[in-house]
Amino acid sequence: MIRAVFFDLDDTLIDTSKLAENARKNAIENMIRHGLPVDFGIAYHELLELINEYGSNFPHHFDYLLRRLDLPYEPKWVAAGVIGYHNTKIAYLKTVKGVRRTLLRLKEMGLQLGVITDGDPVKQWEKILRTGIDDYFEAVLISDSVGVKKPHRKIFEKALEMFDLKPHEAAVVGDRLYSDVYGAKRVGMTAIWFKYGKYANRELDYLEYADFTVRDLEDVVEIIRGLNSEEGSDKEVPAH
Amino acid sequence: MIRAVFFDLDDTLIDTSKLAENARKNAIENMIRHGLPVDFGIAYHELLELINEYGSNFPHHFDYLLRRLDLPYEPKWVAAGVIGYHNTKIAYLKTVKGVRRTLLRLKEMGLQLGVITDGDPVKQWEKILRTGIDDYFEAVLISDSVGVKKPHRKIFEKALEMFDLKPHEAAVVGDRLYSDVYGAKRVGMTAIWFKYGKYANRELDYLEYADFTVRDLEDVVEIIRGLNSEEGSDKEVPAH
Repeated sequence: MIRAVFFDLDDTLIDTSKLAENARKNAIENMIRHGLPVDFGIAYHELLELINEYGSNFPHHFDYLLRRLDLPYEPKWVAAGVIGYHNTKIAYLKTVKGVRRTLLRLKEMGLQLGVITDGDPVKQWEKILRTGIDDYFEAVLISDSVGVKKPHRKIFEKALEMFDLKPHEAAVVGDRLYSDVYGAKRVGMTAIWFKYGKYANRELDYLEYADFTVRDLEDVVEIIRGLNSEEGSDKEVPAH
Repeated sequence: MIRAVFFDLDDTLIDTSKLAENARKNAIENMIRHGLPVDFGIAYHELLELINEYGSNFPHHFDYLLRRLDLPYEPKWVAAGVIGYHNTKIAYLKTVKGVRRTLLRLKEMGLQLGVITDGDPVKQWEKILRTGIDDYFEAVLISDSVGVKKPHRKIFEKALEMFDLKPHEAAVVGDRLYSDVYGAKRVGMTAIWFKYGKYANRELDYLEYADFTVRDLEDVVEIIRGLNSEEGSDKEVPAH
């Protein structure tokens, strides 16, 4: 019997990859519009490399971009980048298709819902609050607050503790085979791979661990319904 | 002969005080809306005290607010504060009444225009770019980039150097009696006090230094026109 479903946030509930790509492109375009003397392709490539090296939450992307492009520090260009980035982020931030219907159906079925995500806690909450999906969830677990990253056992075990559940009573839905699917399976939770976003076409070894694969988030509702209507639905999920 | 006019930014070209007040109030309101268990008046008062102690560019206002209110760190509340603050900042950021007309008239009269401001360079440029007034100015001087704050002589002298002018060929317009008016006068520039915003009703000693006082920014145009049409308009402005 599944009593709780935990969702990953980025590219599962919220369309983050597309957003980030658009935001970065608009940042570079706005910098060039305000005088950055660099070809778009070169600057964008350099920004992606920088983000790859320093991480997406590094607070000095645009300052460092100027250094890497051998340009003087010009706060006007940095400001133009910040504006282009933030305007896009706010304009395009939206939930993945079907999110609200899926969450509502699951609530109607009496399930508890949670979010399990990596990332900066304030930024993750910003996405949740800006898209207005906070009321669907009894718990939001951000791995940073626990001092680990998915697929660390601790974050999934903490999720189970919060709802006082056994592993087989919970399902995890996420787009990442390692972080979400492998992470859920190793503690004995049901894993639903959401084939979506930039990892949609990967076929990694971890794939074998997914109990279910969906391309449409709303299919999660039928999977949970099916699991809970099965005879002996309290059975342990067998280890793979 | 006045050849250049330098404007202060906050509460001279851009309505910053009102904006900051609204943004802070909306931040607290949004935090309370998302569960902050504190009375609005208490939380707002604490935030103002904190900003007073740590400065308005301190990057951890909302984290510290929770500490000062003896509350646990809750990234959801911090995110709610950030959203309330930024939404207001972007929605309400606007130029002071008459700014565009004033700048346009001065350009038509052949004057060079500049901005002389304190504050974080990227944030100041953000205000300039978001309000779209950047094209009016040949120079934007942010004191941080020079390592000083107004009324330090160096920032005003640098402004004159950039346009290759003598002090009596430049005027400064600003709302602050110490930073702008005193700062301009001590290097020999014409000082126009813009009686506006939170300092509009102050009558400090520095007042005696202002060459002109305006309550409407557009009056600057007539003042400059008057100075430049006077007989012997190349005269030194007498020291007070």
